[in-house]
Amino acid sequence: MTLCLAAVLNGCASTPRGTHDLGLIVERASGSVALVETSKQSRLARIEGLGDLSHAHITYSRDGRYGYVFGRDGGLSKVDLLKQILVRRIIQSGNAIGGAISQDGKLIVAQNYEPGGIKIFDADTLDLISEVPAYYAAGQRAKVVGLADLPNQQFAYSLFEAGEIWLTDLSDPLHPKTQRFAAGSQPYDAMVTPDGRYYIAGLFGEDALAMLDLWKPEDGVKKILGGYGRGEVALPVYKMPHLRGWSMAGQDLFLPAIGRHEVLVASTLSWQEKTRIPVQGQPVFVMAQPDGRQIWVNFAFPDNDKVQVIDVATLQVIQTLNVGKAVLHMEFTPRGESVWISARDDNRVSVYDTRHFQRLETLDIQQPSGIFFTNRSGRIGF
Amino acid sequence: MTLCLAAVLNGCASTPRGTHDLGLIVERASGSVALVETSKQSRLARIEGLGDLSHAHITYSRDGRYGYVFGRDGGLSKVDLLKQILVRRIIQSGNAIGGAISQDGKLIVAQNYEPGGIKIFDADTLDLISEVPAYYAAGQRAKVVGLADLPNQQFAYSLFEAGEIWLTDLSDPLHPKTQRFAAGSQPYDAMVTPDGRYYIAGLFGEDALAMLDLWKPEDGVKKILGGYGRGEVALPVYKMPHLRGWSMAGQDLFLPAIGRHEVLVASTLSWQEKTRIPVQGQPVFVMAQPDGRQIWVNFAFPDNDKVQVIDVATLQVIQTLNVGKAVLHMEFTPRGESVWISARDDNRVSVYDTRHFQRLETLDIQQPSGIFFTNRSGRIGF
Repeated sequence: MTLCLAAVLNGCASTPRGTHDLGLIVERASGSVALVETSKQSRLARIEGLGDLSHAHITYSRDGRYGYVFGRDGGLSKVDLLKQILVRRIIQSGNAIGGAISQDGKLIVAQNYEPGGIKIFDADTLDLISEVPAYYAAGQRAKVVGLADLPNQQFAYSLFEAGEIWLTDLSDPLHPKTQRFAAGSQPYDAMVTPDGRYYIAGLFGEDALAMLDLWKPEDGVKKILGGYGRGEVALPVYKMPHLRGWSMAGQDLFLPAIGRHEVLVASTLSWQEKTRIPVQGQPVFVMAQPDGRQIWVNFAFPDNDKVQVIDVATLQVIQTLNVGKAVLHMEFTPRGESVWISARDDNRVSVYDTRHFQRLETLDIQQPSGIFFTNRSGRIGF
Repeated sequence: MTLCLAAVLNGCASTPRGTHDLGLIVERASGSVALVETSKQSRLARIEGLGDLSHAHITYSRDGRYGYVFGRDGGLSKVDLLKQILVRRIIQSGNAIGGAISQDGKLIVAQNYEPGGIKIFDADTLDLISEVPAYYAAGQRAKVVGLADLPNQQFAYSLFEAGEIWLTDLSDPLHPKTQRFAAGSQPYDAMVTPDGRYYIAGLFGEDALAMLDLWKPEDGVKKILGGYGRGEVALPVYKMPHLRGWSMAGQDLFLPAIGRHEVLVASTLSWQEKTRIPVQGQPVFVMAQPDGRQIWVNFAFPDNDKVQVIDVATLQVIQTLNVGKAVLHMEFTPRGESVWISARDDNRVSVYDTRHFQRLETLDIQQPSGIFFTNRSGRIGF
């Protein structure tokens, strides 16, 4: 009882609760995150003071209690979901684009544009442990994109200006060991398959993807899906496309055809294009339900008020939902019975059931963008 | 603060903690479970009074806070992992063989031998909601085996004496809707692929497996892997083999060849046998690491002191570990950096790292059998 009273005096911690149904939603404009829970589909709290949260990414501690928020301004914040407070915040670079957590949960890795490279932090304290600057030529550091955590304390990431994929082993975090692979022109984002085996980067300067088989890294990078549809119009580099939304369902990879109103389907058995599915706009996120039964797609302006659903068995669009203004992100509940969708300019997040496409709930959230549930804690490559 | 003090007086709840790194280990002989945490690889508490826990199974609430323990004696117990107490215990049948939780987390379903059928309970209160008795002929009820939760509030299970697979929709839990499928002779256990698409039952009375494609249930059950190796000697029915350990890695299904010293590998693309891997004994559990890179296998008596590891890329045994006496079960941490293995007759659970096969820790647990981590809360078919 003495210990309990101490705990109470130490900050009103409320009654105990599990962490498996919690999540954080980025409130982009106000530098805050909304703490939500999926069981009752409600907002529990707002946690403020997190800086510039455009392009923000969140990953979770292995116990599910803490969220690590990576801001665009190089801020790295540790948020306590149970006490509903900001635990610590550091500025770790001038311009950052996300981060990840090691397989054992002890290391937080941030990927940086400026200065280009990755930095490794202690997950408990956020103290800097080491870094891998992305020097690809004398005095030249590349922007790092597409960071993914991998089995065995490894991380893969891509160097935009260098045209390389780097694979860093942090088994001894003070002494990172890095392998370099030629990847192709201007890798701009990447994903790893759910088993952590294939690391695939999109190339901005070539009409193809770069794939590294992490079971056989010695074989080097292979180009796949040549001519996959980057589009005819070169996009300006300052508007880097988001491709983390690539998804696997069964044997197939679903990805946005940049600059076209199509979702591409590629076989992971042959790594060849299988088909293209016409959709209502330029896809941004192309996300498979946890059961792989349906693919949910949102779009770039001016079609960013809609979400379309593709049936994986027939490869047809079976549903078009008018979700709201400026749909930015989607996240499935861990077992996929519902999906949460943010509509930034409506200041709301909608919860849909994935079976009947009914809107179950609407939450008032200030300019919501990314939605991140705590089950990411137990997944590879998130 | 008033609320906090009330919470304290209401039971010393200790300081808040996340639930993602927790688990329960069945202490078979003493009718108790050990609460453990994987971050520090330690035991936190013992919770007693759970009855006969041979063949016990555990599933978790959607918030990760509660474990539902299904005992052999028909006991269904709800355990609070944070307060470390037994919340409620009911006797729901005379002889039970496990259970599952619905996709939305609101229903607990128990599968029963006696009386044969499934029962549906409220996950909060454990109050009985409804049941589906397994009548397959007048006055005849079959034992239910191989229960699996599926997307869309559905459950699949097999009826031993009836030779059927039943698919029950609990969208309206007061009024279950059940479809029946002829499956073959004496289905004795089953699994569902990780995406929830294929339900596969082992047949005791035939040398084949029965598969139902849940995306096309109207096509009915197909027989696959005819002659897959049930073995020459008929096993007595009272020693029902455990096959929940079937595992998928990449496109391949790994399963124990009953009665032979082999692990079978079947392609999920063709549903044909691909190869057989010689191992040191009769396999019991054949479990894929979360990254699908390795398969871990334990064995029946007299080889039940060993665990072998198969490399998925080469389909070779690459490691043999002397773990202890009477190895009964294994469980991987959510992201697969380590595996926990119970050795009943040594009264200990060992933690191995999956990269270097080193024993990292040993925990004293009374006659441990099943090990169940809370990340099962977010998975389909567990």
